[in-house]
Amino acid sequence: MNSFAPALMTDQYELTMVSAALKDGTAGRHCVFEVFARRLPTGRRYGVVAGNGRLAELIRDFRFTEEDIDFLRGAGIVDESTAAWLAAYRFKGNIDGYAEGELFFPGSPIMTVSGTFAECVVLETLILSVLNHDCAVATGAARMVTAARGRPIIEMGSRRTHEDAAIAAARAAYLAGFASTSNLAAGKRYGIPTTGTSAHAFTLLHDDEPAAFASQVSALGKNTTLLVDTYDIAQGIRNAIAVAGPDLRAIRIDSGDLSVLAQHSRELLDSLGATETKIIVSGDMDEYAIAALAAEPVDMYGAGTAVVTGSGAPTAGLVYKLVEVEGRPVVKRSENKATVGGRKTAVRRHKPTGTATEEIIVSQGSPAHAANDRPLQRPLVTGGEVVDGPALHESRDHLRQCLISIPWEGLKLSAGDPAIPVTIVPTA
Amino acid sequence: MNSFAPALMTDQYELTMVSAALKDGTAGRHCVFEVFARRLPTGRRYGVVAGNGRLAELIRDFRFTEEDIDFLRGAGIVDESTAAWLAAYRFKGNIDGYAEGELFFPGSPIMTVSGTFAECVVLETLILSVLNHDCAVATGAARMVTAARGRPIIEMGSRRTHEDAAIAAARAAYLAGFASTSNLAAGKRYGIPTTGTSAHAFTLLHDDEPAAFASQVSALGKNTTLLVDTYDIAQGIRNAIAVAGPDLRAIRIDSGDLSVLAQHSRELLDSLGATETKIIVSGDMDEYAIAALAAEPVDMYGAGTAVVTGSGAPTAGLVYKLVEVEGRPVVKRSENKATVGGRKTAVRRHKPTGTATEEIIVSQGSPAHAANDRPLQRPLVTGGEVVDGPALHESRDHLRQCLISIPWEGLKLSAGDPAIPVTIVPTA
Repeated sequence: MNSFAPALMTDQYELTMVSAALKDGTAGRHCVFEVFARRLPTGRRYGVVAGNGRLAELIRDFRFTEEDIDFLRGAGIVDESTAAWLAAYRFKGNIDGYAEGELFFPGSPIMTVSGTFAECVVLETLILSVLNHDCAVATGAARMVTAARGRPIIEMGSRRTHEDAAIAAARAAYLAGFASTSNLAAGKRYGIPTTGTSAHAFTLLHDDEPAAFASQVSALGKNTTLLVDTYDIAQGIRNAIAVAGPDLRAIRIDSGDLSVLAQHSRELLDSLGATETKIIVSGDMDEYAIAALAAEPVDMYGAGTAVVTGSGAPTAGLVYKLVEVEGRPVVKRSENKATVGGRKTAVRRHKPTGTATEEIIVSQGSPAHAANDRPLQRPLVTGGEVVDGPALHESRDHLRQCLISIPWEGLKLSAGDPAIPVTIVPTA
Repeated sequence: MNSFAPALMTDQYELTMVSAALKDGTAGRHCVFEVFARRLPTGRRYGVVAGNGRLAELIRDFRFTEEDIDFLRGAGIVDESTAAWLAAYRFKGNIDGYAEGELFFPGSPIMTVSGTFAECVVLETLILSVLNHDCAVATGAARMVTAARGRPIIEMGSRRTHEDAAIAAARAAYLAGFASTSNLAAGKRYGIPTTGTSAHAFTLLHDDEPAAFASQVSALGKNTTLLVDTYDIAQGIRNAIAVAGPDLRAIRIDSGDLSVLAQHSRELLDSLGATETKIIVSGDMDEYAIAALAAEPVDMYGAGTAVVTGSGAPTAGLVYKLVEVEGRPVVKRSENKATVGGRKTAVRRHKPTGTATEEIIVSQGSPAHAANDRPLQRPLVTGGEVVDGPALHESRDHLRQCLISIPWEGLKLSAGDPAIPVTIVPTA
């Protein structure tokens, strides 16, 4: 098994800090940590919150096993009293946050973790790992979904990323509006629709292309996708229709000038009577490649590398910062990182039409209420107990609504400012 | 547990191909698949092979569980006879490959998988996931190690990547020559030295900076690293030495103009008598930032985001291609992807001085022998049995030797051609 318990998915300094704080008596001070991004990746107009559902499970299982503690003690990383504290560790604090599928902007307090210093600080690495990965993938994926203008996209990037990250990436892409994934573990674990038919190897395995197509149709039926670009694409399409007949569900093209090929393929399919046969294109698809095919007769996209790597921004830039100690705002002073201390409350302000106009974030207080304000934070963990969150498909719907609500400029793929301004009010 | 059995870390089409091939009788054809990169990321001069050790374990555990098969059958992905085949699945073929820590170039056959079509094709996704991730991280990390010119680098990027990928990334960075990691699971699992002391939060938790420093020194001793940039750096250094004395092991600076700050910090430390106190810098370190600090009085680097995301190339671009069926070379024909069919044998040619001059790859035969040729492929799995490979520290040494062997231009950080030319000979 490729399995690790979540508690050691942690930077060593979290535990050395606990150790020192236990010794000097500060470990029990009541603290508030916040997760936010100082900025979005260059030119991005929004971020998408993703990972809460995965995080809820990991926090539920966050225990230091005897074996973990033996390792930590044996390596001289913790002393006996810290080891005892870790052995008894259960997070008993509160976590509030933006819902999965919510948009975020620079400074949005997407997660707020409160409790004792020690119990909160040990969750830092895991919380950031989950959110930085999943938000990065979901954000890139959401841009692709926008670019696809309603045409379905299949996530097929598992082979381009770490094998476990692949499962989380499939989940984040589905959250962002992808139709399905090639990843079977994601299908089993998260109930995401899976898809997949054949690769070039299958055609090469056979004596010729018609033999490969006949085999596939015999095994999977006509409701399948034949990959037609192993040799000559036009001949591949003729072979496909000759073998499967004109009610073949789809062909896939994975290489070449997809714009020209889609046109020629559509014409050829139509001339063969296969007017309902869909065209799926794949191969280096990102949001720009998808947008460039908007006017072509493409029915579905397959996206791989770009989606699992956040399409140029493989990590979301989220940080986990201590903002309050015993009710007192704290902040690191250092140039170019002007951060406001104190626990934040966030609302998104809207026009009566529903269009978002501004995100308002108030430190140590609540924003003055306006009609059409929507509070953005909800309880995720209360007194250490995980609060059941929305199902993945509900979060997916929520994101779709959120994207409808932002001004249309915010959906442009070109580089620009965040879709709505964020106003951070130091004190209420 | 955040755990998945490796068999479902697989694209659905691998199994639908198996299903169709079982039906038509081609599943048992003897096949050879090769893993290679068509090109290196733009301007990169070499790739580093990484992941073999992880892959060996995953292949050893690659079994479809009853639960996996129930899912596949329930979802209609496989029929009864394929389900029975999957239940009995064990890889019984052979895998040969470049050693971990070996360099690779465009076309290098870094892994060769042979056996029946069905047994080889089901490993495709997992093999590519592991190698694409680990090679990407190791390659970026090796460039940072070169840029650091012998100064140690700490891997501290866990929070910037998926929580499981973080563990593999720590391993790949150590392979590439990093000194240590912040990731405790990587320390436990792979025996990599771990390190970590404290974050800004620890200083903010306390009433003032001297109190935080005193607590840390009391808990961890003077052989620790004090983070001095929470408030004013010069005052932070004065506080650090006042609390710990001039034999403090190190200070860390995580923000600001590190070039200027390193100089000022060194002068200040020296003036306080702390002439042996080391300076560690972190914050957005990649190979270029490290190189820019070469002339500054920096003793150690901490690298995060850039190392776990492959420093701009988060996936290695490796593909898994069928090259031979029943002894016959096969190749996909499609523009811009001129690939040579047939099983390849690779050697690296050297001058008598040991400098590598060329990589020679021969399809279906062996290169004519020359003095100072080094064969690059070794058995990784034989008849389904994993062959014990070198220990991680041995692979680390191997990479160091390989990097010494390439022409010095190959170590430049600037964009350029691969460090040595690759000659692919279609037939021997």
